[in-house]
Amino acid sequence: MIQIGLNDEKFIRGAVPMTKSEVRAITLSKLQLGKQNSVVDIGAGTGSITVECALNVSGGVVYAIDKNEQAIELIKQNIAHFKLKNVQVVKGLAPLAIPELDSVDRVVIGGSGGQLAAIFKWLSHKLPLGGIVVANCITLENTVKIIENLKLYNYKNIEVVQASIARGKALADLTMMLANNPVYIISGER
Amino acid sequence: MIQIGLNDEKFIRGAVPMTKSEVRAITLSKLQLGKQNSVVDIGAGTGSITVECALNVSGGVVYAIDKNEQAIELIKQNIAHFKLKNVQVVKGLAPLAIPELDSVDRVVIGGSGGQLAAIFKWLSHKLPLGGIVVANCITLENTVKIIENLKLYNYKNIEVVQASIARGKALADLTMMLANNPVYIISGER
Amino acid sequence: MIQIGLNDEKFIRGAVPMTKSEVRAITLSKLQLGKQNSVVDIGAGTGSITVECALNVSGGVVYAIDKNEQAIELIKQNIAHFKLKNVQVVKGLAPLAIPELDSVDRVVIGGSGGQLAAIFKWLSHKLPLGGIVVANCITLENTVKIIENLKLYNYKNIEVVQASIARGKALADLTMMLANNPVYIISGER
Amino acid sequence: MIQIGLNDEKFIRGAVPMTKSEVRAITLSKLQLGKQNSVVDIGAGTGSITVECALNVSGGVVYAIDKNEQAIELIKQNIAHFKLKNVQVVKGLAPLAIPELDSVDRVVIGGSGGQLAAIFKWLSHKLPLGGIVVANCITLENTVKIIENLKLYNYKNIEVVQASIARGKALADLTMMLANNPVYIISGER
Repeated sequence: MIQIGLNDEKFIRGAVPMTKSEVRAITLSKLQLGKQNSVVDIGAGTGSITVECALNVSGGVVYAIDKNEQAIELIKQNIAHFKLKNVQVVKGLAPLAIPELDSVDRVVIGGSGGQLAAIFKWLSHKLPLGGIVVANCITLENTVKIIENLKLYNYKNIEVVQASIARGKALADLTMMLANNPVYIISGER
Repeated sequence: MIQIGLNDEKFIRGAVPMTKSEVRAITLSKLQLGKQNSVVDIGAGTGSITVECALNVSGGVVYAIDKNEQAIELIKQNIAHFKLKNVQVVKGLAPLAIPELDSVDRVVIGGSGGQLAAIFKWLSHKLPLGGIVVANCITLENTVKIIENLKLYNYKNIEVVQASIARGKALADLTMMLANNPVYIISGER
Repeated sequence: MIQIGLNDEKFIRGAVPMTKSEVRAITLSKLQLGKQNSVVDIGAGTGSITVECALNVSGGVVYAIDKNEQAIELIKQNIAHFKLKNVQVVKGLAPLAIPELDSVDRVVIGGSGGQLAAIFKWLSHKLPLGGIVVANCITLENTVKIIENLKLYNYKNIEVVQASIARGKALADLTMMLANNPVYIISGER
Repeated sequence: MIQIGLNDEKFIRGAVPMTKSEVRAITLSKLQLGKQNSVVDIGAGTGSITVECALNVSGGVVYAIDKNEQAIELIKQNIAHFKLKNVQVVKGLAPLAIPELDSVDRVVIGGSGGQLAAIFKWLSHKLPLGGIVVANCITLENTVKIIENLKLYNYKNIEVVQASIARGKALADLTMMLANNPVYIISGER
């Protein structure tokens, strides 16, 4: 069984934009997952990060939250496709929609729906010491807001990484490089 | 136990340049490792990719090859540090130095020592169908040579990815972005 | 009158891809134009580089070469739009199509039509000492071929620059960064 | 005489970091300089942008402002080196240190010394309609602050560009790509 690094082609995809495999790989590595971790994936989108997390936390649970109905359907399809038993899908806006949890020690922010301040306030109550949050961000303003919140709540090991990935496309005998949009990957430890 | 995505700080480092965690994460994801895979890591350097592979192929072996004495010492230190039992270290120039292997189905090329043509010829004999090779490359000429060799030997699913990673550095209250050198990550399947 | 740095919006654009203003600005700076220089623009495309060169070499001539009929029409429209008197447009494949020139001391290669070797051979006869060639390239293989040719013919001050430009797009109150494809800008002096 | 696109080697350089030629070329192009424009260069550093502006505004003046004594010395050396007659150098912190000006229609912000809000307030009084401001920024927070200020004061044609430039370095026969740190180039028109 393959444990890490699923190809983009392995997922069922819809109209919802999907985190590309390279950014997913970096995001997963920042999460520092162990088998017993439980994860909340906020703005789970297609569920590609949810799936990779669930494959790696066989002793934990992944909560996939998204406000978008299309996304919820796609996440459910991907969960079925990968035969995952340890995912709970919740439709709604985080942090309000996040169910009462026994414990969560890893949080992914793939989309915040304008609720960054409320999400970090929720995290301040729910994420224990040693817990890790990793955000993927495509706007400058939210990248800065996330950094500010990580500092405000005294997170440790704050990392800001910009990943600019270009991908070769065969053009006759030649390889033309096509750029993906840059993604900011911001992480910190409680 | 953490399975994937080790921080750079987790490794013992020397004067030998180390693949940074983001490029390592992408490289690992392209390798599509399963527990039973065996890996040859050519130009293993500090051994950071060797270590992450070994942690993921608990049922397989990783062969770490490097021509540089300093690198060999560092790899051995990292193997001891991570208490790995499934790594064999070989000093010498690939492909000549690669020991006679029962089987190998994943190959990493971190450095080629000018032997790209010979390495791909060796691969044509030793890498079975479904085997995957992933190269990390910092020069334009070797990137092109690797693409040419993957085409010459009819590899499938050839991917060329350029990863340009910038990392935030705190500057008083501000976050200055510092660039890592771009790395080409080229992969293909037999 | 504005001398340098025309916006993309200033040009008449068609289906032919146009060098974006940032890459054009870098390309122009590598050309080190003086008022008396004459320029050959091979693979002139929309003519955006031709136009900026012509505005800067008031005492020289710009020869815009392209094999594509659509491109030729667009170049002519842009020449008329900017009321330029010092441009000659030639339809055909370089170097064969390049007219017999009194002198040329700056050459732009925006597209080579597979004729890189022939173009550099032509340059070896026609470009005087101190002449400068600047190529824009989107494929890895042609970037390497251009570097090889610059070395083969003993050019000085060979420079290889990769420009990865991302551009902000307003998304409500936020700024999302959208990437342009990376362009290699390779230059050398005879 | 060369008008645009000076090489980095043409400047006298000191310990003060210098805007590299590619970013300078993009910055100049965003400034849309005409011969009669007058420019204020805030945080002029080595004076490389001051020099290129002064060469292009033969009918205007460039005011180079910097708070750093070393920078002021370097700017003066570069002005002498390029024999410029249309530059005034002012030591001090902008906007306070900016002399009372007859007119200014182009402003470069190379460094803000923590005075972004005050600088934009000053601009709101001094920069006429049609005037252009271009900022070079290496931190995420100041990039966002500049965008906010451009919106606050209703600038038109706001552009945010991130330039990630890598430069080839010959390594025996090979070309290794070395990255410059990414620079944000933000511009707007009153």
